[in-house]
Amino acid sequence: MKYVIGIDFGTLSGRAAIVHVSTGDELTSSVHQYANGVIDEYLPGSSTRLEPDWALQDPNDYLEVFKQAVPAALKASGISPEDVIGIGIDFTACTMLPTKADGTPLCLLPEWRQKPHAWVKLWKHHAAQPEANQLNAIARQAGFGDILDRYGGKISSEWFFPKAWQILNDDPQLYAAADRLIEAADWAIWQLTGVETRNSCTAGYKAMWSKVQGFPPNEFFKALDPRLENIVDQKMKREILPLGAKAGSLTAQAAAWTGLKAGTAVAVANVDAHVAVPAATVTASGRMVLIMGTSICHMVIGESEQIVPGMCGVVLDGIVPDQPGFAAGQSCVGDHFQWFTENCVPYEYNHAASNAGISIHQYLEEKAAAQKPGESGLLALDWWNGNRSVLVDVDLTGMLLGMTLLTRPEEIYRALIEATAYGTRLIIETFRNNKVPIRELIATGGLPDRNKLLMQIYADVTGLPIFIPKASQIGALGSAMHGAVAAGAANGGYDSILDASVHMAQLRDESYHPIPEHQKTYDLLYQEYLRLHDYFGRGENDVMKRLKMIKADVIS
Amino acid sequence: MKYVIGIDFGTLSGRAAIVHVSTGDELTSSVHQYANGVIDEYLPGSSTRLEPDWALQDPNDYLEVFKQAVPAALKASGISPEDVIGIGIDFTACTMLPTKADGTPLCLLPEWRQKPHAWVKLWKHHAAQPEANQLNAIARQAGFGDILDRYGGKISSEWFFPKAWQILNDDPQLYAAADRLIEAADWAIWQLTGVETRNSCTAGYKAMWSKVQGFPPNEFFKALDPRLENIVDQKMKREILPLGAKAGSLTAQAAAWTGLKAGTAVAVANVDAHVAVPAATVTASGRMVLIMGTSICHMVIGESEQIVPGMCGVVLDGIVPDQPGFAAGQSCVGDHFQWFTENCVPYEYNHAASNAGISIHQYLEEKAAAQKPGESGLLALDWWNGNRSVLVDVDLTGMLLGMTLLTRPEEIYRALIEATAYGTRLIIETFRNNKVPIRELIATGGLPDRNKLLMQIYADVTGLPIFIPKASQIGALGSAMHGAVAAGAANGGYDSILDASVHMAQLRDESYHPIPEHQKTYDLLYQEYLRLHDYFGRGENDVMKRLKMIKADVIS
Repeated sequence: MKYVIGIDFGTLSGRAAIVHVSTGDELTSSVHQYANGVIDEYLPGSSTRLEPDWALQDPNDYLEVFKQAVPAALKASGISPEDVIGIGIDFTACTMLPTKADGTPLCLLPEWRQKPHAWVKLWKHHAAQPEANQLNAIARQAGFGDILDRYGGKISSEWFFPKAWQILNDDPQLYAAADRLIEAADWAIWQLTGVETRNSCTAGYKAMWSKVQGFPPNEFFKALDPRLENIVDQKMKREILPLGAKAGSLTAQAAAWTGLKAGTAVAVANVDAHVAVPAATVTASGRMVLIMGTSICHMVIGESEQIVPGMCGVVLDGIVPDQPGFAAGQSCVGDHFQWFTENCVPYEYNHAASNAGISIHQYLEEKAAAQKPGESGLLALDWWNGNRSVLVDVDLTGMLLGMTLLTRPEEIYRALIEATAYGTRLIIETFRNNKVPIRELIATGGLPDRNKLLMQIYADVTGLPIFIPKASQIGALGSAMHGAVAAGAANGGYDSILDASVHMAQLRDESYHPIPEHQKTYDLLYQEYLRLHDYFGRGENDVMKRLKMIKADVIS
Repeated sequence: MKYVIGIDFGTLSGRAAIVHVSTGDELTSSVHQYANGVIDEYLPGSSTRLEPDWALQDPNDYLEVFKQAVPAALKASGISPEDVIGIGIDFTACTMLPTKADGTPLCLLPEWRQKPHAWVKLWKHHAAQPEANQLNAIARQAGFGDILDRYGGKISSEWFFPKAWQILNDDPQLYAAADRLIEAADWAIWQLTGVETRNSCTAGYKAMWSKVQGFPPNEFFKALDPRLENIVDQKMKREILPLGAKAGSLTAQAAAWTGLKAGTAVAVANVDAHVAVPAATVTASGRMVLIMGTSICHMVIGESEQIVPGMCGVVLDGIVPDQPGFAAGQSCVGDHFQWFTENCVPYEYNHAASNAGISIHQYLEEKAAAQKPGESGLLALDWWNGNRSVLVDVDLTGMLLGMTLLTRPEEIYRALIEATAYGTRLIIETFRNNKVPIRELIATGGLPDRNKLLMQIYADVTGLPIFIPKASQIGALGSAMHGAVAAGAANGGYDSILDASVHMAQLRDESYHPIPEHQKTYDLLYQEYLRLHDYFGRGENDVMKRLKMIKADVIS
């Protein structure tokens, strides 16, 4: 029996899983919490206060996942390291850092350790918004609008070049001292293999790379800032490896960290949402994967590269080799329900849930499940955290309508779930209207297991069946699958991610199907949602933005 | 020293107050709770189940106020009945009942006691909505639209003729047996004096009477229903007495009930909101009285009879003699905040309020008071209970907009307060735009004493100073003042309500004045409110009504 190891690097911890190559079943797994977690107030061991919107990490925390979680999972499984044929990892993105030419992070060097820009910038570091705004404006003016169109029209402040530009603007000395600027995902693979590689997923979705056109030309970067003209050649790498490619072999040092055999095949890095797609059985067009947690990532493989309004990106080789991978997103889903339970649920409900021995979410779900679609008379716009797809507008805010003196908390809770489902339906329809077919949904992430009502509402609102992958740790499985492809069939793995997916990825018997009577009501409600979506979201009444401006004025 | 007695008949109890004629100061008061309260499930002592939307009362409960509360107040005061020169009452309206020719309520006769229509229909009996809808449609078609215009364009189901027509439709035998149909206010005065009188306030605001035109012509009633053609002559009275007029003198029987002297002057009946106006020092144009409780009544005296869109009514002699009295209303104010605290406030807040020994309203007020206008980024439409003025549309519902994941309950609470203030500003502006001047506000009712933040917000939003009457029981004071006018100056009272108001009504030193910086922000926010008010309220997007129709469909 052969095994692969998948390592899923999240925002607060890393998880290593030992997976059967032949079935995809998880044997054991182990989680290591990052000691420094999200660094957003003070640098570790320092009194240097960070500005608002900063979010950093410590690269040593990633190494500790190799040193702690992998040996622990291995030990618990009882298998021999000899039987582990490959390793794959997935990471949050864009999570990036400056290093020396040998891969040493600047933040680990005493001379740079007190400098905030020396540390890893986590995906949710939002302090490069000025650079993102400038980039979007200049790119459009300078004739590079077609590049932006591949990303729904706007580059996010979370992505690679705004973050790199912020380093240059704030700390040019440190920028000069950085031989490399690299995704933490690729940096982690470098630590395992001793070889610097760059993967097509982060390059494509976060660093504006395209398989056909490569990175934007030097003129583009020069137009942004003359000092950025040669950033790709100076600090990055033009060679981009496809997903599932072998990055290299485990070094002796990394073998000592992990307890694995030196020489074990290591796959190029991948991104958490993207690695989930083949692990959810999807390697071709027609089925959308929803990764449902605090937010939703909508991942779909297309038949041809299309410009879809409001998507987060289309990247050839971005999800599986040789096919265009599309991503879209909703920025406020699980977060939304969490906000509601923390701010809007009366004492009696917490009390009753606690007496019944269930969570407040379960309690609200039970009460909300007793309502029929349309019964509350409520309708919401799910923009508590702005709108990613299809409007790409962080300045939009939430709306709730239809309340009477008889409105109850569980009705509002259900209306918020429905609003996120309408948002997903609009994303699906936008893809379909732009020649990206979607016939089925596969839902994974934390929400599908936690809220069956939500799943049924999504089926009813979208009119599509929803299937659930068997694996609960979908990221670790997807990473392990890529490790199996890096090993190759000759070594007991697979020669392609398609093969790996056929053997290792499975769906549960459980699925959700639209109830025709509910669909009929939701079709009516969705029309109302669309009309308000466009009224508040497409410029007819920019009241949400004006309220934000008034707020900014009065608190300044 | 001379005294007058004011009796305020509310929805659940009646209050009798002994008041100094010279100063208006309250000596003592006593409250009697109605034994049968609001009858909305079963008739007393019966298994006859009432339909939804019914709300009845027992006339014996009113008599008990005379028998219990008046003697109790008198006893507590220690004064001699000889020194009481007059009695006035105010009542909820339209609260009406069928009686025999001698005033005996049908519900007190064994042969009618089991019939729901024999009982008093309370103001909030809403089961005559079909009759109200028909009345409004037919009146417009049959050329009586000018009458409707005196009432903001629509007659409410709460008013006299829809209720009378419902009796006729549902129980024609009982209708035939009713010699009189009469406001409970006038019936109560009949019980004190032995004389049937009708007052100009309920006749004008609730029964479509006008000082110049009288009741609508018989053709109007015939157009509604041929059986109604002679309703005024058959069941009512065409002689209408102005407010402050003497209805008669206390009978020996009523003297025995109350402990007062037979022959004491009794004023014609009045309505709770209207009697409050002179008690709040207002007997001329320019100052609006806000009676702020679960809802707000906006009362203002004009210089000439004007048609103001969306008002509840304009009645010459309706508030004070010889001047046109205007009323408008907001249907959801205190109710709104109550709904919020019951449905949307998290456990921790109740806990903290309880630890601090304050109510949850006080706790939220304290937190909300720490915010600046505009700081929350929130905006609401205060239509949780429909919109009375200026849209006159019960099918509108609430809206809240601008929420983010950082929005806190106290911010929503403040936004709801602000929304009701915008609603009041719009009512004020509508009056002003229709030649009814308003320069100052006088606020009374339960809210001004309970929520200082709310009062400051109303001043800031309207840009007007707000004064508070000294009397906390404004209805009882107003009634007492009318008792003093009924007695007349020759007997130690006053010859007009203007004189009574000068001597008996006072304001506190405490007042609220607009803060210019707040006004500036609220002017901006009010413009946003107006735009959404018109968008959702004037037909541009009838989504609220469509959601109600969808709801009606799915629950049927």
